[in-house]
This record gives sequence, C-alpha cells and structure tokens, in this order.
Amino acid sequence: MKTINVALIGYKFMGRAHSNAYRQAAAFFDLPAKPVLKVLVGRDQAAAQQVADQFGWEEVATDWRQVVERCDVDLIDIASPGNTHRDIALAAAQCGKHILCEKPLANTLEEAKAMWYAAEEANVVNMVNFNYRRTPAVALAKQMIEAGEIGEIRQWRSAYLQDWIIDPAFPLVWRLQSAISGSGALGDIGAHSLDLARYLVGEIEAVTSLTKTFITERPLATATTGLSATGGSTRGPVTVDDAAIWLAKFAGGAIGTFEATRMAPGRRNYNHFEISGSKGSLGFNFERMNELEFYRHDDPAGRQGWRTIQATEPSHPYVSAWWPAGHGLGYEHTFTHAVADLCKAIAEGGKASPDFADGAKTQAVLEAILRSAKSGAWEKTSMA
Amino acid sequence: MKTINVALIGYKFMGRAHSNAYRQAAAFFDLPAKPVLKVLVGRDQAAAQQVADQFGWEEVATDWRQVVERCDVDLIDIASPGNTHRDIALAAAQCGKHILCEKPLANTLEEAKAMWYAAEEANVVNMVNFNYRRTPAVALAKQMIEAGEIGEIRQWRSAYLQDWIIDPAFPLVWRLQSAISGSGALGDIGAHSLDLARYLVGEIEAVTSLTKTFITERPLATATTGLSATGGSTRGPVTVDDAAIWLAKFAGGAIGTFEATRMAPGRRNYNHFEISGSKGSLGFNFERMNELEFYRHDDPAGRQGWRTIQATEPSHPYVSAWWPAGHGLGYEHTFTHAVADLCKAIAEGGKASPDFADGAKTQAVLEAILRSAKSGAWEKTSMA
Amino acid sequence: MKTINVALIGYKFMGRAHSNAYRQAAAFFDLPAKPVLKVLVGRDQAAAQQVADQFGWEEVATDWRQVVERCDVDLIDIASPGNTHRDIALAAAQCGKHILCEKPLANTLEEAKAMWYAAEEANVVNMVNFNYRRTPAVALAKQMIEAGEIGEIRQWRSAYLQDWIIDPAFPLVWRLQSAISGSGALGDIGAHSLDLARYLVGEIEAVTSLTKTFITERPLATATTGLSATGGSTRGPVTVDDAAIWLAKFAGGAIGTFEATRMAPGRRNYNHFEISGSKGSLGFNFERMNELEFYRHDDPAGRQGWRTIQATEPSHPYVSAWWPAGHGLGYEHTFTHAVADLCKAIAEGGKASPDFADGAKTQAVLEAILRSAKSGAWEKTSMA
Amino acid sequence: MKTINVALIGYKFMGRAHSNAYRQAAAFFDLPAKPVLKVLVGRDQAAAQQVADQFGWEEVATDWRQVVERCDVDLIDIASPGNTHRDIALAAAQCGKHILCEKPLANTLEEAKAMWYAAEEANVVNMVNFNYRRTPAVALAKQMIEAGEIGEIRQWRSAYLQDWIIDPAFPLVWRLQSAISGSGALGDIGAHSLDLARYLVGEIEAVTSLTKTFITERPLATATTGLSATGGSTRGPVTVDDAAIWLAKFAGGAIGTFEATRMAPGRRNYNHFEISGSKGSLGFNFERMNELEFYRHDDPAGRQGWRTIQATEPSHPYVSAWWPAGHGLGYEHTFTHAVADLCKAIAEGGKASPDFADGAKTQAVLEAILRSAKSGAWEKTSMA
Repeated sequence: MKTINVALIGYKFMGRAHSNAYRQAAAFFDLPAKPVLKVLVGRDQAAAQQVADQFGWEEVATDWRQVVERCDVDLIDIASPGNTHRDIALAAAQCGKHILCEKPLANTLEEAKAMWYAAEEANVVNMVNFNYRRTPAVALAKQMIEAGEIGEIRQWRSAYLQDWIIDPAFPLVWRLQSAISGSGALGDIGAHSLDLARYLVGEIEAVTSLTKTFITERPLATATTGLSATGGSTRGPVTVDDAAIWLAKFAGGAIGTFEATRMAPGRRNYNHFEISGSKGSLGFNFERMNELEFYRHDDPAGRQGWRTIQATEPSHPYVSAWWPAGHGLGYEHTFTHAVADLCKAIAEGGKASPDFADGAKTQAVLEAILRSAKSGAWEKTSMA
Repeated sequence: MKTINVALIGYKFMGRAHSNAYRQAAAFFDLPAKPVLKVLVGRDQAAAQQVADQFGWEEVATDWRQVVERCDVDLIDIASPGNTHRDIALAAAQCGKHILCEKPLANTLEEAKAMWYAAEEANVVNMVNFNYRRTPAVALAKQMIEAGEIGEIRQWRSAYLQDWIIDPAFPLVWRLQSAISGSGALGDIGAHSLDLARYLVGEIEAVTSLTKTFITERPLATATTGLSATGGSTRGPVTVDDAAIWLAKFAGGAIGTFEATRMAPGRRNYNHFEISGSKGSLGFNFERMNELEFYRHDDPAGRQGWRTIQATEPSHPYVSAWWPAGHGLGYEHTFTHAVADLCKAIAEGGKASPDFADGAKTQAVLEAILRSAKSGAWEKTSMA
Repeated sequence: MKTINVALIGYKFMGRAHSNAYRQAAAFFDLPAKPVLKVLVGRDQAAAQQVADQFGWEEVATDWRQVVERCDVDLIDIASPGNTHRDIALAAAQCGKHILCEKPLANTLEEAKAMWYAAEEANVVNMVNFNYRRTPAVALAKQMIEAGEIGEIRQWRSAYLQDWIIDPAFPLVWRLQSAISGSGALGDIGAHSLDLARYLVGEIEAVTSLTKTFITERPLATATTGLSATGGSTRGPVTVDDAAIWLAKFAGGAIGTFEATRMAPGRRNYNHFEISGSKGSLGFNFERMNELEFYRHDDPAGRQGWRTIQATEPSHPYVSAWWPAGHGLGYEHTFTHAVADLCKAIAEGGKASPDFADGAKTQAVLEAILRSAKSGAWEKTSMA
Repeated sequence: MKTINVALIGYKFMGRAHSNAYRQAAAFFDLPAKPVLKVLVGRDQAAAQQVADQFGWEEVATDWRQVVERCDVDLIDIASPGNTHRDIALAAAQCGKHILCEKPLANTLEEAKAMWYAAEEANVVNMVNFNYRRTPAVALAKQMIEAGEIGEIRQWRSAYLQDWIIDPAFPLVWRLQSAISGSGALGDIGAHSLDLARYLVGEIEAVTSLTKTFITERPLATATTGLSATGGSTRGPVTVDDAAIWLAKFAGGAIGTFEATRMAPGRRNYNHFEISGSKGSLGFNFERMNELEFYRHDDPAGRQGWRTIQATEPSHPYVSAWWPAGHGLGYEHTFTHAVADLCKAIAEGGKASPDFADGAKTQAVLEAILRSAKSGAWEKTSMA
C-alpha cells in the first residue's frame, strides 16, 4: 500500500491532536495512501520524545530545517506558533514537500501570500487546518446550502466565545503576545469564524471593527501545559486583543456580524453561527458539535420549527466511518477528517481544501479588521 | 379609592395590549390608584367601538385633540404609529396630562426631544413603553447586575430576530414605510435592544452600523389585521431597513454587537441578549421569556455551568402578583407591569421609568446608527 | 347580548385563576354568551371580598348552599378542595345549574360517579377543569394526532414533577391531608397526566403502581397563602403520597409510564409527556408551555430531527385570539380557554369537554392506581 | 514497559470499538501496562483480517478455543453475541486469563453466575463493559453523589430510547432473536440503565414490569453491517421485546421508573436519566454526552436553576487525558476509559469495576423483569 511519510513540527496541544489524527485516519477511513508517523519535531527533545512514544512516532528531531530536507519525508505538518509558519512552509515547498499548516496560516498577510505562492510554485498539496469545517454538522450545512435548502443567504451571525483568560491572574502565555501569535481572540478563534463564513457564505468584501483588551497587564508565564499555565510575580503587557467584533459585507450581498472573545464567562468553546437564508436557516454551536439546527420555511404552516438534526447519521459527511446514529463524535475527529481528506488529495494528485490561498484570503480579512480597528472606517479586504 | 382616568389612542395590536394592561393591573397588583378605562380613541369609530366593548372602555372617540383637552382624563396613552407621537404628546403635556407613549418615542430625535422637554416643563409623569424591561427575567437581570453578581460588564451581544416579512408577497404595511414608522427593524425592534442595553449596561457613546433592505419592492397592502396583511397587485418601494447591524462603545468601557432583523427564518420574536461580565454572565431570549440564563464564575471549579433560572419565583420582580413558581407568564404581562408601575408613579407623584428622556436618548442612538449607515464611520450618539 | 351569571366557590389559587378567566374570555374571544361575575363564595367573607373587589365580582357570599339555589345564577364553578366537590355539584345539578368543577372531579370514584350521573340527569352542561388540555401546544398535539401525523400511538411517557415540598419544614397544608385532598401528588398532578393521556392516547385499561411518602411527618400549618405556608412546632402525619409511579396498558394497545411527584428538586411545574407513534413523536413540557416538540419519521433521511414548534401561530388552537406569533401565553390563559369553550357550550346547548364522565373515568384510574399500590398487582380501571 | 497481550473475539460494531480503545488508551493515558493488540478472532477470516489491518492487530484467528489457550495472551475480550459469552469466559478463566466481557454479561442469570464464579475462582481480573459509566459526565455524577451533593437519593427516572427498528421492513437481525441475544431492548439497552442505576443509586430489590413487541414479524436478514441490515422476502417471528418498562424499589428506599425501547421515533441513542435527591438533582442524556445537568437546592432563593455543566474540565474524570475545556469527547472514548482502567487493574493486581458480580446482579434484575412481565406481580431480584 502507498504511504505518506509525515514530519510533524510541534508536540503540544495541536501536536497531540495532529498525531492522533494520523493514527486514526487509516484505522477508520479507507485511504488510498496511509500516513506514516515518521518524525516528530520539537525543540525540547525529551518532551517531544514522550509524545512520540505515546503516539508511535518513529523518531524525534529538534531541528525542523534538517527534517524538511529529508528525502524520506513526504508531508510537513506545521503545528507550531504562527510566527514560525512562513519559514517552515517556504523551506518545505522548496524541498517539494506537501504541507499541512495550522491556522491562522501566518501572522501577516504578507507572510501568508508568500506561503501561498511558494506552495503553488512548488506544486505541492497544501492545506490550512481550519478543522471546524470538518465537523460533520458543518460539512452537512455546506451540503444543504449548496443544494439550495435555505435559499439565497442574507445574513450571517457568529460568536466564537471562550473564557479561559477571564481571571486577571492568568499569565501572559504566547497566545497573548502579538509578536508570537499575531493577534489575540481575533486570529486564534475569529479566524475560524471567518473561515466558516467564507466556506458557507462566500468572500467578504469589507469590514468595520472594534477590538478591545480588557486586562492590559498579566503575570509572566512560568510554566505552560496545553492551554493551562502558571504565572509568576513579574508582569508584562498584553499585546493582543481580548475581544474583537466586526460587521461584514459579503460579495454576494449578504451581511454579517462577528464576535471573537476570550472574555465570555461560561463559554468554554462556543463556536457558534446562525445563517439566515431566503428559504430557511441553519445554526451550529461547537459545544454541541453533533447537532445542526435547521429551519425550513417551506414546511407546512403550523408545523414549522427549528429542528435539531443529530449529525450522526451514516448519510452525513464523514460519519459512516465511525459509529451508528446517535453515537456522537468528539473534538479530535475533525482533525482525523482533515488528515483523511489530505491523504486522499496527496495520493490522487488533487487539491486540498481549504488551501493556502484560502488561508491567505482569511488573513486578508484579519488584516482589514485590524486596519479598521485603527481607522474606524470600513476597510476593503484587499489582497494587495 | 383614587382613580386615574385613561384615554388610549390606538386600538389595534398595541391598543389591545394596553387595554388589557389597564384591566389587569388593578386585578393583580395592589395599586395606590386604579386606572379607569375612560375613552378609546380611533379614527375608525366602528372598529374602535368593538375593541372598546371587548375591554370595557366607557366611551369611544375619533378625534384625539378633543379627548386630550377633556378635564375628566388624567392620562393620555399614545399607541398610534410613530409619526403621530409628537403632536399628541405635546398637546397632552400642554393640557397637563400624564403620558404613556409607545416606543420608539418618536420618528426623529428632534421630535423626541420636543416631547421630552414638553413633558418636563409640564411636570407630568411620562413614560415610554419599552415593555421588555418589565419581563420578570429582565428585571431580575437588572437586580443581579446592580448587586454586582456578574461584576463589571465587558460585553453585550444582542440579536432581535423576526421573520414575518421574509415572504416577498407580504405587503407594504405601514411598518415598512419610513414616512409613518421612521425606520424598519431598527426602530421597531432594534429600539427595544437599545433600551435593554441602556437599562442593563449603560449609555452608548458611539456606533458604527450597516442597514440593508433585501426586498426593495412589495405589493401595496389592501387589508391589515394586527401584523398580518394582504397585498394587491400594485407594488411600491420599501423605504425602511429589513435588517440593521451595529457595533457600539458604551460609556462605561463595555463593547457591544447588535442586530435587528425581520429576515431571520424561524425566529418569530427572538429578542435575545447575552451579557459578559468580569464575574459572570446573563442571557435572555423573549421566546423563552420565563427563563433567565445565569453563569457564575465563582461557582466551585468543576461545578460551573450556565443555569436556567425560571423567573417565576415569588421573590422575582412582579411575580408575587401572579401564580406559584413554574406557572409562567405571557407577553401581555409586560404591559400590565408597565401600567402598574405607571399608576404608582402617578399616584405617588414619582417619576416613571423609562421616561421621555430615556426615549430621547434611545432615539439619539437610533439616529447615530442611521447616520453611520450612510457615512460608514463611527458616529457619536449626540443629543444635539 | 346573552349572558351567563357565574357563582364561583373558592377564592384562593384556583379562585383567582377562575376569576381572571371569566374576565378575560369575553375580552379576547368572540363569545355567544358573556360570563357575568355574579357572586364569589368563600367562608372567610373579608378575604373573599378582597378578591371580589380585585376581579370585579358583584357580590360575595359565605354559604354556597344559598347561592346554588339563586335563580339569578346560571353556572356554579367549584374551585374548593376535593372533599367539597360532590355535595356542591349535586346541589347545583338539582337546581339545574351548569357546572364547572376543578380537578380531580372528586376524592373517590363513588363521589365522581354520583356527580356525573347527577349532571347527566339534570341535563346541565358539565365540565371538569383539566386546564392543561387547553394549552395551545397540547391542543395542537391533539389535532396532529387526529390527523395521523404521528401514526398509531405505541408509547406514552410522562413525568409531572414539582418540588414545593422537598423541605421537611414545609407544613402540613390541606393538600397533604388525604381526608381533604384524597391523595397527594397522584390526584393533584398525576390526575392531569392521566387526563392528558386519555385525551391524546385513549382509555387506560389497567395499571400497576407504587406510591411513596418520603417525609412522613410535618409541622402543622399555621398560615397559608396560595401554595406557600408557614408551619408551627406541632407536627402531624402526612397522609398522602409524595410520589406515585405507575405503568399502564391502554385499550388501543399502547403502553405507558407515568410519574407524579412533588419531590423532584428543580422541577417547579414540569408537566412533561412524550408520545411515540409509528410515524413520529410529540413532546411537551409545561415549563415551556409555548413549545411543542415534533419529530416526523417521514422527513427525508439526513434531515430528520426533533423540531420545536412555537405554538404561537394564529393557526394554532386558541392563539388567534391573542398576539402575533412568538408572543407567548402564560399559565392563566389555559383557564381562559376553558371558560371560552364552556360559555360556547352553554350558549349553544352543546357538551363541554372534558365532562364529568371524563372526570369519573380519570377517577377510576386514580383508584386503580391506589388499589395497585396496595395489592402489588395489575388492577383494571373498572368503573364499577 | 509491562505489556498486556490482548485477544479480542468479535470484530463488528463492538469489535471495532474495543480495537480502537486498546490503541487509544496507551496514547492518551499514562498506563502502568500497555495493551498489545495480539490477536483478533472472527469466524469470517477475511472480514476479521480487514479490521485487524485497520487497527493493527498482529494476527487473526478463527477459533477462539485455541486462542484462549495460548500462553502469549493475557486478556480475553469477549465482544461477540450474548449466547457465546459463557463458554468463552469459562474457558478463559480456566486458562487463567483476565477477561473483559461486553454487556449484558450473559443471556441468563445462570450463565452469568457461572461466569462470575469461574472468574472469581480463577482469581483473574474480570470486567463487564457497561461503558456508559465511563462517560465523564456520568463518572462526575458518581463523584457528586458520593460527596453528598444531592443528598439522599429518592427517585430515579430513566428512559433509554432508540428508533432503529421502527420501520417494519427492518430485518430480523440477531439482536431481534432471543436465542442469540436473550432479550430485546431490555437486555441491550435496558441493561445499561440498570447498570447506571446500580452504580449511582444502589441495589434494586424488586421490580414490576411490562414488555411489548409491536412488530411481531420481520423479513429475515440477508446482509448486516453494524446496526444496518437488509431484509429479504421471507419473514420470521420477532422473539424479543421492542420495549420494556418497569418500576423498581431500591434497597436504600428510593423508587424508580425505567424504560427501554427501540420504538421511539427521533431518539437515536437517548440514554437518559434524572435523579432526585433530598438536596438536589442530576440529569444526563447520552446524545449530549459532554453535559451533566445539576440542580442544587441550597443555591440562594431566586438564583436556583438547573445548570449545564460541560463535563469537559480537566478536573472531571478522565478529561485531563484529552483536550482543553469545551472540546468534547465522543462515544468511543467511553471504551478507551474502560480499557485504561482495566489495564491499571491488571497491572496493579486490583479489581475492575463493574466486574462479573455486577454483571450477574444486573442479570438477576433483568430476569426479575422478565418474570414480572409474565406474572404481572412484583418480583424480587433474587440471585438464587
């Protein structure tokens, strides 16, 4: 059987999610090429080795530059912080490796475009991992929209709400430092909403926005595990947004409201959207990821109502690989689906989606949002 | 017992809701002065007479000007379309009558200010009927916020969604004509969200907005009943917004997203808000008006969760007048509560709330939103 | 216009709910005969007078026997405790008065049958007030079942849960004394579930049951208001069930589970049922009384899901009398609907529903449940 | 590192779920001994080989008797139909192998006891896989009950509802044949509810029940995949219950209602329970497996309400092995948790839970339910 040798850069939260996906994809999906967990790359060798042992990586390395050049590696998976994406991707493309990159694609549009052009020029399969697209309920929403089940889309409303930093004692982890992460809630979770909006509604032409940092100083981090961290007594400035809100005009005529915040008590990972079309509506909230809300205007009068589709039917996207109806999936399955699709694209010489072009376009919207937050005016989502 | 003689102008949807409130307030609340249903005013005498008979109005009249001057009338209640509010209110104030006015207070800020000043000068009790404030769940939210239960408020997100005009065959009723109604979803339902936001969070300083009319032409209305109507074959232009969305900066530092639309399939009267504070959150949706959602950050770790308070406890605002816990109230109760509070203010020489000053301030925000929709810039909510 | 002169016996929780219904029915429904609030009967004259003043009763009386014989009274409404129902009803029937009686119809089957026969012999309109039938969502469920929308009914599951006596300090009010109330949760709220099951599914043939009193002794009540009460230091035995659970065989072949309890923390008035048919399902919970849950098996594969019908459409039973879609009703509306239907039956010489025959049949099931709780065996719901 | 060599018998729905669990347990949990996927046993070698390849089993075998005797196997995992459990378990015990057995433990109490005694005599670690215990939300409920958070338990209400056989054309698969499966909904899903009730509330002393087969004849199955199947034109009798309902008396004084059915349209895998205690309540529904509903009577008056705990916090059972809060788990994780606990028990010489004694006790309740369905009387859950 055909194989795809993978090198994964990053072994923490995202590294574990990706490692799992490579293992699971081949167990549950009938793949034309099977991913091989070749080498896990991390600057802390011991820590990386531990993850490698758990998930079955053949080797561990500390220098991604050497790994990218290895001829026994087919796919470079970038799961490290945003400020490292461009250099790794450019090197990988130069070496002719296929690339999977965590979102957001980069910290700036310029970087993102460089990555896109490099991947295109090198003609390698490239994918940016906006994993929520591959929640079965979301992929089902996409099918329904394409089938015209909610008609012409008029309005988008989304709120991606989290609350893991509401405590002022929560330390200044890398996700709160713009030099490393680019932006705060905006790039981390707002980028997911933008990708979903682009996927389900279409391109965004212009935005007007507001960003806010409620807690402007935090203790420096002394230790970090996943999203948890401990702070010391020294403090530093928070250089990213705690919350970002914006209005959008879509190219197709729809309008939208967006919110991304880490300051919404009680919302752990509330990635929510609702779409109003001319014939119906769709709603989704990742905290109930196995459900899709659907309203059909053409239902008989007096029998209309929002219905909860359990997106766990064999006929729903990705589901037949798993369990019978009503036996829901979890967070990590979205990564497994991404890997399954990616392996298929690599094996069959196709294109992956969302690709670096998508990642760059989302980055362009992110930049327009940041520009608008400064200018106070509507800003076009120019790629220039 | 002291009485308050009421003249009500308008007998349709709002007229019926107000009529009911005057009847019910004295039956369920222990009032210092009892409203007397003196005279119902409508241009169509026969139609008005029918409503008067149903609700027990002593008389019917067709000319509000005469009624306003009657010395046996204490309170003028304005439940007619927005373009009539100013003239009636000014006449009522001049005659020294107390005034209850449906929302929005007027179609323009200028009118609203004139009403406010007139009422103040005449020293009459004045109230604008933003009835949703008096849903027990909302009044409870206010109490909780004032008691500091969710800490300092950081974010507001609201969506007031309806869908009664999604059918392009729905006719051009007066609510779709700017000359009569001032604006569309914005003034009709967005005004409610603004009032709730001002009530619960505080003053709004600036806004940036977008308005949209998706269906730009509709059949002229040939007959209307409540919110239903029939259209003919002639068509006319829709001159109000179908949807309005805006971002807001509150004076206290909070930020907010707002949406008002009549184009959200499946949302009949979804008046929803969620407030994020530093110590907790509150959520409300009028379609489940007897429930208040509450998240308390100080709950023990591992036991935190959004809780659904059934706002039907005797200890909750207004509820002890009604039924035991778990026996919910309906839409019209909010009007009864308004009348109960108004009668108390009149009898005791106090002030009503929200008053015309509030109505004017909300009108100032509405105008800023309309200005921003044209300018594309942030607009201050100036009262000038 | 034709009128119906009403004498209401009882002025507490149920007395207020009935008083309100007579006032509201004529205001909102187009009735062929209008109820007149003639006389309110209560043993405590001063207390009764207060309620009479609030709701507009013309007179107050303390002796129901005299009132029943008055020739200016057309309808006797029995809203006093269960142990008084039979005597009042028999006297009323003898005097040729129409009768509305609170549920359960009586404390024993024998009493209930006597009432039924007396009313039938006197040929008076008779109705037992199982008010939940007249929640629009429930009446809609009935229409849907009759239209075959969920096919042949196979299973019923209901739980009527309350929690107002979970505190052991809650006193021994009359509802906890079998001599006055007949039984506990069973007759008070279980009777409602039985009525709904008979209404929606059909006759019950046999039951097996279990009853339980968790708190067997309570302080004697020193003061009572509605469902609240204060207890003293003397204690007495609780002589009714805190909870009753039973299985049922329906005549039509369906099977059912039932629960009635006042010991379910967090459930204030959770009157819940779910019906499984061969083609679909229906679900209802009174705490969200404006919603009906509906599942349609014939929906296309992959689009099936429980939908929430907001039973607030003009096309839904009773709703067109009230407000536009999405503007929900409250608890007391169910009584208003009962009165509206009753007035129609009286004016038009028709039959009311549920009538005393229904009340007696439900009583027969209640007795079978009590017998089974003792025998441990299945008991037929014999009327003998 | 210590290892545990596993032989798994069965490769279909349960076989895949178990295979996955062995792979995942070591990747996500820090185990004292790591399971090795040694041999997968299935009568259809080709089909078994395919599953073995997907999940990484070292070998495939067709004769479980030979495998049980292999000295390189430490753990026998029985995931084949109920009528095979006893023989395999007895052989395994005789060979000194540890045993994991799918639920229900056996088709009869006699078989279950034989298995229990054999395992005990052989002193091998034994576990019956009632996997729902290991949903984090359920394990959290257990912790809360043990900590007294809902006080003394008074009532249990559960309904395990499915709908995969409501279509009369659905064929006569093995789960509908008593000779293979023992019983229908009762043993398949009712057994899960019984296990949860025993786990969370305690032993059940007596039951009264009713079972029903609504569709008594079905097409013989011609092909089966997981829970889906195709039927031919020949028909055969359904020899198990479609639905079972029962009442229960717990040893500790609590009472309970139970339902297990495959005939509830719209309920895919609705494994629901609610527990009423003297101080609070807990509720769970597997279709929203990442949530636990909690009501706390001691919350301040006016602030009480059912709260939704997202059982995805690091402090919740099993969760720290996975993802950050709000990133839910899926169905198969419950199996992974079982395997993790089992490996720990084997490595450390402890006991697993639930063990075969638990399985036998649940079997005793199942038999009492079946006896009661015939006798119509309360039946003790005797182990004799």
